Parts: sequence; structure tokens; C-alpha cells
Amino acid sequence: LIQVLGWDIGGANVKAAWLEWDGGIRALRTASRPFEIWRRKEELGEALRSIAAKLPPARSMAVTMTAELADAFRNKREGVSFVLDSLAVAFPGAELRIFKVEGAFTSSAEARADHLAVAASNWAATAHLLAQHVPAAIMVDIGSTTTDLIPIAAGRVMARGRTDPERLLAGELLYTGALRTNVAAIIQRVPLWGGECPVAAEYFAIAGDVYLLLGDLSPQDYTCPSPDGRPPTAQFAAERLARLVCADAEMLSRDDILAVARAVAEAQVAQVAAALQRVAARLERQAPAIVTGLGAFIARRAAGRCGFETLDLSAIVGVEPGNVAPAVAVAWLLAQEHEHRA
Amino acid sequence: LIQVLGWDIGGANVKAAWLEWDGGIRALRTASRPFEIWRRKEELGEALRSIAAKLPPARSMAVTMTAELADAFRNKREGVSFVLDSLAVAFPGAELRIFKVEGAFTSSAEARADHLAVAASNWAATAHLLAQHVPAAIMVDIGSTTTDLIPIAAGRVMARGRTDPERLLAGELLYTGALRTNVAAIIQRVPLWGGECPVAAEYFAIAGDVYLLLGDLSPQDYTCPSPDGRPPTAQFAAERLARLVCADAEMLSRDDILAVARAVAEAQVAQVAAALQRVAARLERQAPAIVTGLGAFIARRAAGRCGFETLDLSAIVGVEPGNVAPAVAVAWLLAQEHEHRA
Repeated sequence: LIQVLGWDIGGANVKAAWLEWDGGIRALRTASRPFEIWRRKEELGEALRSIAAKLPPARSMAVTMTAELADAFRNKREGVSFVLDSLAVAFPGAELRIFKVEGAFTSSAEARADHLAVAASNWAATAHLLAQHVPAAIMVDIGSTTTDLIPIAAGRVMARGRTDPERLLAGELLYTGALRTNVAAIIQRVPLWGGECPVAAEYFAIAGDVYLLLGDLSPQDYTCPSPDGRPPTAQFAAERLARLVCADAEMLSRDDILAVARAVAEAQVAQVAAALQRVAARLERQAPAIVTGLGAFIARRAAGRCGFETLDLSAIVGVEPGNVAPAVAVAWLLAQEHEHRA
Repeated sequence: LIQVLGWDIGGANVKAAWLEWDGGIRALRTASRPFEIWRRKEELGEALRSIAAKLPPARSMAVTMTAELADAFRNKREGVSFVLDSLAVAFPGAELRIFKVEGAFTSSAEARADHLAVAASNWAATAHLLAQHVPAAIMVDIGSTTTDLIPIAAGRVMARGRTDPERLLAGELLYTGALRTNVAAIIQRVPLWGGECPVAAEYFAIAGDVYLLLGDLSPQDYTCPSPDGRPPTAQFAAERLARLVCADAEMLSRDDILAVARAVAEAQVAQVAAALQRVAARLERQAPAIVTGLGAFIARRAAGRCGFETLDLSAIVGVEPGNVAPAVAVAWLLAQEHEHRA
């Protein structure tokens, strides 16, 4: 029996998936924890251990990361090294295999020597797993912070971008998410009192406030700190959204605030739909959108608007990865590698 | 001899101006301090006292504020009250006169009873002072965080907006500034490698990084914390700007990063120019742009682009208010009131 722990070490969340393998997944468990690496990077090792402690043990670990982009690090080289150091110290006996953007594993030493090969590879893990299950698809993973849109054709991952800037340019990385995104980065103007009001360039409200108020996310989904530090309730979310137009919940009616929230949600769907069509235009024939992540509901709306058939990732791969698809995928891919070697 | 202390109590900066008056300004001194009220509002009184201690004493105090918008407060009512409480505790013997948006002073008690009459009145102080000196003008005060564009005609302040949301809708408040503004709220795409790259919706770089790198601001002007906590040097500013496209200073050349900075600066000039033309369209005849604030250099560029005659506020009013024009103006207006009463 092969037992593997998969890691997806982000800048704001650390996610893990443990799986037991005997030619297929025999058991799967996942765990995750919000962890803002730019606030306290020195506690990363401790955070990793606390997550691992919630799962059965595994000596073999598969690693993807995006935390190297956080401004706790002067550059990605420093970030990749720091994450690998933290893993090595947290799990001294573990065998670490680092997933490369191109779709194969490498050693920690090689990852350090060619850090751009392993930086921000989490989308590649999900995409390579998905490509084993469907010949053609557009993967749409909307997380708390970012969105990955990856075309798959003839059973191959057709991504054009390798590094984050290349992926932004290709439209395969959309820097918008269902929870942490500052609303001021989603929309420039919102409806107010019959006009269109520019929004304050502050950190007053996030996507999570919009979806909490609209009922798309629950307070339990709101796993990051709120901008004003108050709880994830509809009332406080409304107060945060009122500040977007430099108002407060006394100056605006509930309908005023709901109209703001709906406009933000609409802007985000439109943004994802536009990116989806851009990526889809590269495929020779129409393919279904395969959606996953905390913001899968946004992906479904965007895909529906584009007239795409929409399927959940879980329906394709046969297990429910929750909101930690890259962690599950990278564990799965490493289990397969172990099996092939054996 | 009349001695007055003027306050402009913002959410990120507290500014003060002391002046001595005998039918005109006989002496003027100013002081200011960055103070992020959303992080530690309970220390406001102490901050006020530390600023007052840098200036000669004055029992008579004129007050404007914008801090009530900060999300340390659930609403503006709470914010206005808190600021007035802090002043009363910090300066027990002082006579506090609160400036109203409509252009007159009121008591603390009346300000509490009608808090929207005194919230965000700092622009009104500068505009009313300016209207005493020029019959027609467009005042453009670009601060660290926001921009005020106020038309003056026939010696009267012609603002349409009273509250912040009204002012945003009227184009008289532009939520963009020369220092603190998140670049992700200024521009959506920047030039990169021959394409246009969407920027990361994070808090990676601010306007101050752009202007530091381009030489428009000095490290001494960069009075707020930087997004990554590192110093205000050109090298660190470049590293922060590289993160905008999810890159780092190893992946990008110095020219790549300069092109990003120039695009952000250009977007901000274009935004101010558009707002300036919108406000100017309300005047019957062409009027000069009167510029002030830390971002006066942006205002000058925008006004020049619109073909407007441009003058510094100091040239019009005959004193140099530095970057604290509203504090000077509110002190000046209160000194005049004392004189008229006497």
C-alpha cells in the first residue's frame, strides 16, 4: 500500500491531502488552514506540522507551492528555498518530491537550482490529473484569491504560460478569487442612487463580503481575516461594502448595498467568462468546463453564460477534492509514480 | 493677537497648522504625523498631543476630519464622535470649533448631533479660503490617498457634493493619491514583454513606489509603511512593482519595471485629467487650476494636458501651506471669525 501526503503551500492558505493507493485511491483525507505567510513566515514549519497532525502519517510527500510570490520574500528564489527549508525542518524523515510546472516531480535540490520550474505549479498538478480523465476540457479552478483556466486537448495540458507573468499574459491565471480579492480590484464603479459611483481605493471590502451577503458563501467559508477585523456576518459584510462608496450602513439602504454586491458579483462573472472564452478559442472544438474550488459557483455561472457544458471536477476524477484539488492531485500523481516505479 | 491651531485629522495622517493673526497671517507653523487610525485608534489623543507639542500653544482650535471613514468605526457617527472625544480629552481647556462642509464653524455638540455636516470637510476649508483670493478656479488638491477637485466661480465654492458618496458621484472626490493608493486600484493592465499584463489583485505596490522609482517623490515623502515592510528605496520599490505582474526583480529587467511605473503614472494623470475636465465643464469660462498637496506634480501634469493655466495654491494665498493646506485653511478661517467677532 502506498501512502502519500500532497501539499499545496500558498501565501494565504496551506492545504494538504493524504491518500492511500493500491492502483487507485483507497482512502483520501484532506486538511487545510489559513496561513498568511507575509505576516509570520517563521511559523510556516509549525503550520505544516499542525496540518499534518490532522492526517494519517506518510513519509512520501508531494509538494506544490505558490507562497514564493508573497512579499515576505524578496524574490521567488528566496521563497522557494524558504518553503523547501521549512518542509525539511518540519518533516526530517520525509521524502520530498517537488512538482514541476511541466508535469513531473523533481528533488528538493533540483528545485532549488531551478526554482522557476517549481514555482506556482499547483494548477499544473490539477490539470495533469484531469488530462488523464478527459481528452478535452477547460479546467476552471477559482480559489480564494486566484483563478486558473487551463485548456486540455487530446489528453494533454495545453497551457502556454509557465511562470506566473506568462500565465497572466496568456489569460490562464486570472488574479481574482471568491474570498480574499479586494473589491476595489474587481470593479471600478458601482450603482448608487441612480448613478455610477467610483469605489474607494482602500482595503474596505473583499469578494467574501459580496458572496456572504448574497448567500453564495457561508460564514464558515470566510476563512480569512475581514478587512475591518469584524466577524463574517451579513450585517458586518454590508457595513464593509457601504465603505466602498465612502458611505456607511446608516446612509445606505439595504437595497443600495445589495445593488453594490450584485454589481461586484456580475463584474467577476463577466471577467471569468471573458477569460474562459479567450482560452476556449485556442481549442479546435468545444470542450466542457470542469470547475472546482471555493469559487466553483462563479465558474459555473461564467461557463453557463458562455454556453459551455459544465461539470464538477469531482464527477470527472471520481473523488471529492473539496477546495483542495491541487493537493489531492499532486498526491495522486506521486502515488502513480510510486506505482510505476515499483 | 489671535492664535489658532488648525487640525486636519485623517485616517492615515494627522496634520496641524498653528498661526498668529493680526488682520493677516503674522506667523505660520505646521506639523504632521502619519497615524493609521484603523490600527490603533485608542492612541489618537496621544498622537494629537505629540503633534501639538511641536507647535506653539493655542487655546482656540479649528477642526476638520476625514478619519471618520476609517473602518475602525462601524459608521461615521461613531467616527466623528470618537475624534471629538479624543480632542476633548487631549486638550481639556481648548475651545473647539468644527468646520462644516457648508463653510462655517459649529460647536462639538452640534457636530455630534449632525455628524454628516462635519464629516470629510477638509476640502471645504481649503476651497473657502481659496474663494476669498480668486474669483474663478478649479482647486486640485492631490494628497497621499485622495484628490479633491473643487470648482470656484464668482468667488463662491461651487461643489455639488456634500457627503463623500455625493462627492464621488460628482467627480469632486477622486479616490486616488500620490502615496498610499494600491497600484491595483489605479491600473488594470501594464505593459510587459510586448503585451499587456493584468496586475495581481494584492497589496504589492503603492503609488509611492511608482513615484519613488520615477524620481517624483523622495524617500522622505514616503511617510507610510511600504506594502512589504521594506524601506522606501528605488531598489525595493522596483521589487514591489515587479510583484504587480507576479514576477520578481530577477525575472524583470530594470527597463521592464520602469515601463510598469510609467504606465501607472500615466494612468493616474489621465484619471485626474478626465476628472478635471468634467468639473471644469461646469464653469462658464476657463479658470486656472490651483494645485496643492503631495501630488501637486500629478495635478500640474493633468492640468497641463487639459491646457489649463496652472498655479500653486501658495502663489494665490501668499503663504506656503506645504502638504497641509486644509489645516492651514481651517486655522485661517477661524482666525478671521475671531477677528470679525472682536
